Amino acid sequence: MSDGSLDPEDWEALKRSFHAALDQAIDRLRDIGDAPVWRPTPDDVKARLTATLPHRGEPLDRVIDSFVADILPYGTGNTHPRFFGWVHGAGNTAGALGEALAALMNCNVGGRDHVAVYVERQVIAWCKEIFAYPAASSGLLTTGTSMGTVVALAAARDAKAGADVQKLGMAAAPRPLVGYASSQAHSAVAKAFDLLGFGRDALRAVPVDADFRLSLPALAEMIEADRARGAEPMAVVASVGTVNTGAIDDLAGLAALCRNEKLWLHADAAFGGLAVLIPDFAPALAALAEADSIAFDFHKWLQVPYDCGAVLVKDEAAHRAAFTDRRDYLASAKRGLAGGEPWFCDFGPELSRGFRALKVWFTLRTYGIDRLAAVIERNCRQAQRLGRLVAERRELELLAPVSLNIACFRFAEARDAASLDRLNEAIVAELQLRGIAAPSTTRIGGRTAIRVNLTNHRTSDADLDLLVDAVCRLGRELSARSAPPGAGEGR
Amino acid sequence: MSDGSLDPEDWEALKRSFHAALDQAIDRLRDIGDAPVWRPTPDDVKARLTATLPHRGEPLDRVIDSFVADILPYGTGNTHPRFFGWVHGAGNTAGALGEALAALMNCNVGGRDHVAVYVERQVIAWCKEIFAYPAASSGLLTTGTSMGTVVALAAARDAKAGADVQKLGMAAAPRPLVGYASSQAHSAVAKAFDLLGFGRDALRAVPVDADFRLSLPALAEMIEADRARGAEPMAVVASVGTVNTGAIDDLAGLAALCRNEKLWLHADAAFGGLAVLIPDFAPALAALAEADSIAFDFHKWLQVPYDCGAVLVKDEAAHRAAFTDRRDYLASAKRGLAGGEPWFCDFGPELSRGFRALKVWFTLRTYGIDRLAAVIERNCRQAQRLGRLVAERRELELLAPVSLNIACFRFAEARDAASLDRLNEAIVAELQLRGIAAPSTTRIGGRTAIRVNLTNHRTSDADLDLLVDAVCRLGRELSARSAPPGAGEGR
Repeated sequence: MSDGSLDPEDWEALKRSFHAALDQAIDRLRDIGDAPVWRPTPDDVKARLTATLPHRGEPLDRVIDSFVADILPYGTGNTHPRFFGWVHGAGNTAGALGEALAALMNCNVGGRDHVAVYVERQVIAWCKEIFAYPAASSGLLTTGTSMGTVVALAAARDAKAGADVQKLGMAAAPRPLVGYASSQAHSAVAKAFDLLGFGRDALRAVPVDADFRLSLPALAEMIEADRARGAEPMAVVASVGTVNTGAIDDLAGLAALCRNEKLWLHADAAFGGLAVLIPDFAPALAALAEADSIAFDFHKWLQVPYDCGAVLVKDEAAHRAAFTDRRDYLASAKRGLAGGEPWFCDFGPELSRGFRALKVWFTLRTYGIDRLAAVIERNCRQAQRLGRLVAERRELELLAPVSLNIACFRFAEARDAASLDRLNEAIVAELQLRGIAAPSTTRIGGRTAIRVNLTNHRTSDADLDLLVDAVCRLGRELSARSAPPGAGEGR
Repeated sequence: MSDGSLDPEDWEALKRSFHAALDQAIDRLRDIGDAPVWRPTPDDVKARLTATLPHRGEPLDRVIDSFVADILPYGTGNTHPRFFGWVHGAGNTAGALGEALAALMNCNVGGRDHVAVYVERQVIAWCKEIFAYPAASSGLLTTGTSMGTVVALAAARDAKAGADVQKLGMAAAPRPLVGYASSQAHSAVAKAFDLLGFGRDALRAVPVDADFRLSLPALAEMIEADRARGAEPMAVVASVGTVNTGAIDDLAGLAALCRNEKLWLHADAAFGGLAVLIPDFAPALAALAEADSIAFDFHKWLQVPYDCGAVLVKDEAAHRAAFTDRRDYLASAKRGLAGGEPWFCDFGPELSRGFRALKVWFTLRTYGIDRLAAVIERNCRQAQRLGRLVAERRELELLAPVSLNIACFRFAEARDAASLDRLNEAIVAELQLRGIAAPSTTRIGGRTAIRVNLTNHRTSDADLDLLVDAVCRLGRELSARSAPPGAGEGR
């Protein structure tokens, strides 16, 4: 070992530092239920986090102390049982260990012949099992569904453009390329259409039915109209669990339509797709197997630490053709480290890739998919139960049917619509600021909703009872405070 | 804590498992110099890594045993002092601890108001210091330079297209958009041109000079010719350390040209840009500050564990405009967890983002940038020294000038050109298969080169002596073996 290396002089001391630091992070997880869900980062911490580039190093133990004091207590909050915001997974300890070991191994999984490649292939094979995808399909771990959708739509674009757009650019397409998703689709889909050069307008927002599912008749009409005006319909993106309400598009219907119309069906299954693992949703989600591509997240409902998603593409050749471009310095070899074909860098935009497969491997091996499915099942049951709790309270109003794991409701006793919106925003902010719970907000039918998403293995039924009580209490407290003197409730 | 959670029943046992697993991974790092650089993954391991999706879990300690036996010994090899392949960083233990802690915290750094956002902002501010970038510029941590380049070129595209291509697509650009990079530019640049809808042909390959640097006169002519035929020159991508030979384009010259021609100058500084930290290269690299955007990697020469890169964009508004698209469910709030503007998801394609800033923060705090710069300096000195060692050996031939940290040479005693190519490929494969060292190969001027890249803090001068001896020994051994009976050397 050269003297100038970054390796420690005392390896046993390094181990002790690792143990001490990780023990404190583990203790925090153990006791997380007793802590506030979220607390703002204090101003003095923020100030310290503006220190300039360190020129000289510090002993590792001092850096750890700084981490424990300034960083560890002020995280996103999603490890807490009463974190219900957006769609965040809660993480898990076995997966965290996998990530720690991956960091020490420091593999680059862009390609070549080494064990990390085989681990990622195994994880991809497990994904195919989950969605009953054919063994000959291809897949890639990504930072999340956003990038998975970019990768899938790039393959769709290149397969459907009617010209060699990879070489000649999008302007070479003989007709304007258009795609479809419901008006409830995630913004990541529009961002992908932008990034890939279709433009956001090329993603048509298809109206939804009363359950917030894409309307098939409306889609059929839009395709016909687009063809009539000379555009080239190319792909449909199914929302498999919308972020607003958890709505799941009619996958079998979409698959049949796309087959007939020769469109690429991509499933944005970020969290909802995993409900295929539980009996209540397996029938509706079985048709995921008919999609041309699926993107989903491990870091949401499968509780793998951030970040990790995956994309599966049924047509391996189309997937590879969209991304392969190897130069001399990346030539593969029959023997040695440069073997290992196919390389993962041929299936996505990244040439260097981390070993995110290992945290997935640790998570799935340690808990097994059945136990992870039980978390999904419990979360769905909890959402239904929350819907009933809301219905039982005079002062609360459910704003959308509970279809998966999301309940959107509001505190409904106030003077007028505008003040109700402000009141519910204030309730959510106070829940967060007081550390009680962390739902988020959204707009449903023009009204501000308190949005409770359940993708959290630590949430118990009691946590939801506590939430409902707190919303009602805060609603009364805040509406009393904001009411002008003498203003009656009847206004 | 609910009974159904994935948390362990015995937290102290969990800590012991973490300690035992990490100690074994740390021991392996400590003893890495005694192990083969690389060894093929054994067939029985590969077979076990085809096991189907686990339905029931296993005790964590059994998963750890399986990891230690089947995965830990068979990594990419880049933690070894004699790994010289491609451009891989060697990792570091403080950064690995940061990653482990990030995995336990499980923050989502897509946005909102929590400490991980402040840590990433600090890391981005440090990046600006390194490259003397203005404080008002924007930045984002990415999986690497490939994605950093996509992000930067998306901002360039939207700023320069002459139409609202985000909304209307690339076909709306009034003239065909073209960009330029040297013929030695990394394939990630062409992949970015493809992904963003320009098409690969829209990236013009500018000829290089004898030192493999982009020819400015040739570039000026190409721009003029493109304009003459109605195309719209938009961006130039400077190679700051080519992967073949480490060549650095004339940044000051490119900056002046781009200013005059109103082109966006993007610097692909994956590893070479960091040489700005050392006196020999600081003058040539100072003009990086004039680029409109810079993408570079932490996981290469700064030794942060995979994956982590960064992109800086001078025009914050252009950067943000290229990616922002927030829906109701992502609305920010003045108070609470939904504060924290600006959100990182507004500066890149990802809505969920891991806390990769923490491993950078641990690395920079623990070692300080001066010690990391000393690694860079030593690697450059080692490349020069290797060049001299090659020159001293009659049987070796240097194939390109050593300009940064890369030496390309070959064993040159054989019968004819074709057999020399095969012989050098065989030498590299044998070096890898015997676990002696792991250089890679490339083609330089139509000839197969043994390519030695030094971005490794563990490499000592003795490791390079050993490499040169081994190449000569293997060259003689393999050429003797492959020579047909009676064939003379003079053939």
